[in-house]
Amino acid sequence: MTGQTLFRREIEEQPRVLESLLGSGRGPAQAIARAVAAFAPNLVLIAARGSSDNAARYAQYLFGNRHRMPVALATPSLFGAYQTPPRIDSAWVIGVSQSGQSPDVVEVVAEGRRQGALTLAITNTPDSPLGRAAEWTLPLGAGSEQAVAASKTYLAQLFAFSLLSAALESAQQGSFGAWEELRRIPALVEQTVRRCESVEQAVSLFAESSSALVLGRGYNYSTAFELALKLKETCQVWAQPYSPADFLHGPLALLTKGLPVLWVAPSSPVLQVEEGAPLLQLLEARDARRMVISDRPELLGRAQLAVPLPAGVPEWLSPLSAVLPGQCFAEALARHKGLDPDRPPGLTKVTRTR
Amino acid sequence: MTGQTLFRREIEEQPRVLESLLGSGRGPAQAIARAVAAFAPNLVLIAARGSSDNAARYAQYLFGNRHRMPVALATPSLFGAYQTPPRIDSAWVIGVSQSGQSPDVVEVVAEGRRQGALTLAITNTPDSPLGRAAEWTLPLGAGSEQAVAASKTYLAQLFAFSLLSAALESAQQGSFGAWEELRRIPALVEQTVRRCESVEQAVSLFAESSSALVLGRGYNYSTAFELALKLKETCQVWAQPYSPADFLHGPLALLTKGLPVLWVAPSSPVLQVEEGAPLLQLLEARDARRMVISDRPELLGRAQLAVPLPAGVPEWLSPLSAVLPGQCFAEALARHKGLDPDRPPGLTKVTRTR
Repeated sequence: MTGQTLFRREIEEQPRVLESLLGSGRGPAQAIARAVAAFAPNLVLIAARGSSDNAARYAQYLFGNRHRMPVALATPSLFGAYQTPPRIDSAWVIGVSQSGQSPDVVEVVAEGRRQGALTLAITNTPDSPLGRAAEWTLPLGAGSEQAVAASKTYLAQLFAFSLLSAALESAQQGSFGAWEELRRIPALVEQTVRRCESVEQAVSLFAESSSALVLGRGYNYSTAFELALKLKETCQVWAQPYSPADFLHGPLALLTKGLPVLWVAPSSPVLQVEEGAPLLQLLEARDARRMVISDRPELLGRAQLAVPLPAGVPEWLSPLSAVLPGQCFAEALARHKGLDPDRPPGLTKVTRTR
Repeated sequence: MTGQTLFRREIEEQPRVLESLLGSGRGPAQAIARAVAAFAPNLVLIAARGSSDNAARYAQYLFGNRHRMPVALATPSLFGAYQTPPRIDSAWVIGVSQSGQSPDVVEVVAEGRRQGALTLAITNTPDSPLGRAAEWTLPLGAGSEQAVAASKTYLAQLFAFSLLSAALESAQQGSFGAWEELRRIPALVEQTVRRCESVEQAVSLFAESSSALVLGRGYNYSTAFELALKLKETCQVWAQPYSPADFLHGPLALLTKGLPVLWVAPSSPVLQVEEGAPLLQLLEARDARRMVISDRPELLGRAQLAVPLPAGVPEWLSPLSAVLPGQCFAEALARHKGLDPDRPPGLTKVTRTR
């Protein structure tokens, strides 16, 4: 034992978790995709909480962008407390949960099944209330996650969605190119993990501030939410995630001198739009402390902490590598602040809400 | 001129704005509701930014709870930057915007119309790009809003949605009870405005803290988001909105001793669920400064700042009165902190994002 935290150890396990899911998940993903193609849902409805909800945000862009499916995040209280579930009989209803335990997520999937929707559980615990409620299950096989803050199960959830997308492409269009791209991901993630140390050395950039902004858009809107959640959970930093567009509609008022800003900015059509916009000038003019996670040298060059991403990751898979330096950063920042990243105060691994 | 801020003046105008919209909006709402009943959409898709997006959150619960319609908040970058809009030809697509100017919101509605969806603009500026893009328009008629922080246009947007709900009920079920409930709202809102002064005197409760939590669930999830946005915009407070359920999945780590917590808790089935949960004990155990907006004496009695709501507001209309004390509180807190609530730094009234 080197005194390494559980959170850090699970961050490092991620390449292996993805490699393993690539093998075990392809078969189930293909079977589910055939069922989806046959069912032809008019809506994808996803129920999730916490980190799993951030994986659901990825799916909003993934299924929207690659399969033209409208995706809604569920409002669980309509199903539970209000007992007035919306009509979702023609939907593909997906519950995402590491533990498969949270009653509110289970209720949405169970109601979907009652109505005749196509139901799927994406979970690390197939033999759980969620796994049993859904018709289909895609097990994450990530092994036991012991740190309270999710890392490898979050990455596995993203990867599960990307396997489903590759399988849908095969089922709907008979094309298999996406699998080639997926196959390269575990090694690219491994490459990103190895660069973690350089990020850790820069925690002083954020150490003085009790608040921070985390910006990301499109596919990496999910990454902004997930990294803000990590900073809150493990570092007690008031980190607010925004798309740069939403940020300009009001919250911009928070941008005070010296504020840490983490911008997740892999190559993307949304970046083309923003280059014309005043975002970087704005951050510079207000003297924000800029941490930029990107594969674009012209953006990295304007950051105080430049975190280069490996080249060759297509945008639809970029959230899998872009989140990693942020996980490492949160883990290191927590230790730097004298906090235990494995046991945030007041939190437990399994949270049961209704 | 008494030196009253524009923001405060517009807060006080709200009862008259609703009274006027009750007259002008009923006809258009009924015509739109008949079109919706005939179209029978399989999904409601709403595009909005900032405060308007919070009004959209209200509509998620309103249309879900009262009409069993699934509601999704749009992801505008799929329509704009990515140029891969999802299939929404059977949806009711609604754009909500005070100015009707933001290109990203206009794009979603324009694409909906291209695909054959039923499109509606809810706007204070019918003769705007948004108003022209949609087939149907429901004008807010709130008059010019001059403070950068929205108040009367937000309340008018909520009211516009509730008019549509009453009209849908008439069109779908031939029942007219909702109109009676709507008719009483302007007077109840007036009653709440008159109580603003007692809230203003208590700003010291939040004055020392640069961060705050705002909790609300179900119908008042929207209110939590809107009040957090007001606190950010006008008071530069890092206010984070959560449903109590999401809050327990991670962000609970932020609950440090003395933290201001605003809980929006009108009578509701979601409150029955939470009474069993450890929320209030948790807040008390961590010595949070508790501001509670509620009509429930047993909850008010456990707050440092108890903000009683008028009785007799049905839950589906409660966001119209519950947001008011929070608007007043934000306005007064901004002045207390020496900030100008009418002109938050860096913000402009009309924000155009793509």
